[in-house]
Amino acid sequence: MNHDALTYARHHRGENLEDLQALLRIPSISTLPESKPDLQRTAQWLADKLNGLGLDHVQIMPTAGHPVVYADWLDAGPAAPTLLIYGHYDVQPIDPLDEWLTPPFEPTVKGDNMFGRGATDDKGQLYVHIAAVEAYLKGAGQLPLNIKFMLEGEEEIGSPNLSAFMRANLDLLKADAALISDSHILDPHTPVLITGVRGLAYLEVTLRGSTHDLHSGSYGGVVQNPLNALVRLLASLHDEQGRITIPGFYDDVRDLSPAERAAMNSGLITDESVLAETGAPALWGEAGYTAAERKSVRPTLDIHGIRGGFVGAGQKTVIPAVASAKVSMRLVPNQSADKTARLFIDHIQRIAPKTMGVSIEKMSCEDGAVVDISTPAIEAAAEAYEQGFGRRPYYMREGGSIPVVSLLDKLLSMPVVMMGFGLPDDRLHAPNEKFHLPNFYRGIETAIHYYDIFSRKGN
Amino acid sequence: MNHDALTYARHHRGENLEDLQALLRIPSISTLPESKPDLQRTAQWLADKLNGLGLDHVQIMPTAGHPVVYADWLDAGPAAPTLLIYGHYDVQPIDPLDEWLTPPFEPTVKGDNMFGRGATDDKGQLYVHIAAVEAYLKGAGQLPLNIKFMLEGEEEIGSPNLSAFMRANLDLLKADAALISDSHILDPHTPVLITGVRGLAYLEVTLRGSTHDLHSGSYGGVVQNPLNALVRLLASLHDEQGRITIPGFYDDVRDLSPAERAAMNSGLITDESVLAETGAPALWGEAGYTAAERKSVRPTLDIHGIRGGFVGAGQKTVIPAVASAKVSMRLVPNQSADKTARLFIDHIQRIAPKTMGVSIEKMSCEDGAVVDISTPAIEAAAEAYEQGFGRRPYYMREGGSIPVVSLLDKLLSMPVVMMGFGLPDDRLHAPNEKFHLPNFYRGIETAIHYYDIFSRKGN
Repeated sequence: MNHDALTYARHHRGENLEDLQALLRIPSISTLPESKPDLQRTAQWLADKLNGLGLDHVQIMPTAGHPVVYADWLDAGPAAPTLLIYGHYDVQPIDPLDEWLTPPFEPTVKGDNMFGRGATDDKGQLYVHIAAVEAYLKGAGQLPLNIKFMLEGEEEIGSPNLSAFMRANLDLLKADAALISDSHILDPHTPVLITGVRGLAYLEVTLRGSTHDLHSGSYGGVVQNPLNALVRLLASLHDEQGRITIPGFYDDVRDLSPAERAAMNSGLITDESVLAETGAPALWGEAGYTAAERKSVRPTLDIHGIRGGFVGAGQKTVIPAVASAKVSMRLVPNQSADKTARLFIDHIQRIAPKTMGVSIEKMSCEDGAVVDISTPAIEAAAEAYEQGFGRRPYYMREGGSIPVVSLLDKLLSMPVVMMGFGLPDDRLHAPNEKFHLPNFYRGIETAIHYYDIFSRKGN
Repeated sequence: MNHDALTYARHHRGENLEDLQALLRIPSISTLPESKPDLQRTAQWLADKLNGLGLDHVQIMPTAGHPVVYADWLDAGPAAPTLLIYGHYDVQPIDPLDEWLTPPFEPTVKGDNMFGRGATDDKGQLYVHIAAVEAYLKGAGQLPLNIKFMLEGEEEIGSPNLSAFMRANLDLLKADAALISDSHILDPHTPVLITGVRGLAYLEVTLRGSTHDLHSGSYGGVVQNPLNALVRLLASLHDEQGRITIPGFYDDVRDLSPAERAAMNSGLITDESVLAETGAPALWGEAGYTAAERKSVRPTLDIHGIRGGFVGAGQKTVIPAVASAKVSMRLVPNQSADKTARLFIDHIQRIAPKTMGVSIEKMSCEDGAVVDISTPAIEAAAEAYEQGFGRRPYYMREGGSIPVVSLLDKLLSMPVVMMGFGLPDDRLHAPNEKFHLPNFYRGIETAIHYYDIFSRKGN
């Protein structure tokens, strides 16, 4: 059965690529209110596709935000294990558009890569599993285990409605393990199993000075400029050692044991590798920790954008009435996102100058999580990688956030397998996002192996 | 002659308003490269208008940027004084567009006010003089003195080509005094003569981190975020006392004498008046100086906009490759704009972190100036205000910058009269800029009086 599925997948690479391109053409940017119809279209596209494969109970299930696409195939019977496959069909915004070399929603193949928003994050990686399921069902007539798909449309905005959705559908989602392909491996031949993700608290701080924009010649130095005040406020959030200055911020951060630190600094992620990946002139970060540690087990704070005043070509001598900044903090396991957001809000309210009205919007809060690598579901993934990539994976903590991981753990108590196929240079969230196509095809075969191996190991 | 001109002006208010509205409809934003044809159209509109009035030597004179419109009427003869009238036909950008209550380039009259970009700054105020000249030529058949118009299209970008233009046309521009209406008075009944303007150095600082945008989950805390670095850099430019920290910045700033400070703090500009005008929760500025002083005789530094990352609706967890800030400094007389820009550049280069590539663009440099209020040209303005507004003007230093003032002084050694008709709440450079129409009509009559009074006082 495994062999028939592999053969089918190898003979249908072109069709899989074309299907993925169709999926990538729909601009499903979840954060933009005007994209709502595109999210709905994407959900419909997926539902149609899963229906076409013969899956059962295909449903576009509404949430308070964008819908979840659900489908299952349970004909392997109650004796076989059940795998819940999670993916997200929403994508990041495309700004800055002028840095894209090809249009973000016209997926373009150049050499071994396909460029387009969502190519790896996560449309390409979720399609790996649709293709693998198709290979079994069409190539072998059946799957070796039961499958459930839960494909959401709000991951890039912090999955604000997923918790409520899962709580309302605990029975429907019941499974022996969850599988997520939404992470990257080290290079095209070196797979990685993710053993933890960081949490995220994303907020927007707004300072209001005057009731209307002012001429800087008339009012500069007389009333406070919200941009001047905002940079002062934001700059104060780090000290000279790159540590975050919010009182209580580090209280729940667990120190790593010497053994954990040694494992983390095994040489996979080095100063040199980060410099090569980013092209930055020098590294930066919290004193006392290596790049590998700062990338995954230490919390961080980043500014993502500052609004207010004039940023067009040329010059304008304006003091804006209002300035705001988008800020997020990556959190490590044990740090509560809600608690951290509260510490942030309290701190900003306390230090904001009296010359400004201040308001703070909490945009998303997601907890981090760690997984136990000794469970059969994760051991099966290591074996599947070995079959698909020719070598066993490394185990690594991920610096990014996948909100569903903590939810699956807390609400459904199931082991979560994070078996990704992206590459470090895939430019997630940035212009010219790509998917390395050999990884797409190897990913499909690895998934085929995984279903087979887990069907024998599972339960 | 004066009486005939006044009568003509009073009978043609509707036509003057319509003409001004036509001028305001052309979106002549000098800082936007794509607006170049609109600047040319505005210059042509003015040349046609001045030709229609019977002025001589009407010319659209090219510069390296936007053209200067020149016209004269010299039939008063060599015994009469000659007045050079300066104005600028370019306007500020219209961002943020969504805060305009009426379209910025569809001038809209509501009650006593006309709203539109350029309404006071400076199309409305330059049109005051076109209307006053028209009133003499059509109402009385002649002017009591010789008039030259120099109308430029680059004031809002710091008049980068005006110095070269004036140097190349010293004879053409020769006059006994220059008159500029590009400032504001205290309230509709309280005129103000401006006795000095501040200089301006406007720069853009760009920090480059990585070669491409990065995912903050993967690289936050590992490489420096250019926005994090930029807020730190910008915040350091002021100390706790609101003083600018650039070494040498204050070296050439002249201290005021106690008498000058007393005159400046006569009660015209108070904390209360500034709070009422701006709606700010509290004032802010350099310790040890009053609002009236900070507004005009102390130098300042303001951030006008910060670019980089994501500022749309919603959230994006990006570390931008590049972030930049537009920054300007208002300079007091004696401070050289070029020297100050150099101090700024040297300081930023010195303090910029090694984690960033830094580049700094000097966008404009204009020196400030002060004028001698005892000259006949300025005395004539005080008398004209008395005729037009029923009371003598206050004398005040202006916080904004008008580059031509220093050029007229240095290149042509002529007294410069700054006789404005705007109001403090006219929202220059901001959404919903307006012109108080009673000031427009009173301005035209005041100009008519000025030409008459100066024709008798001048030389």
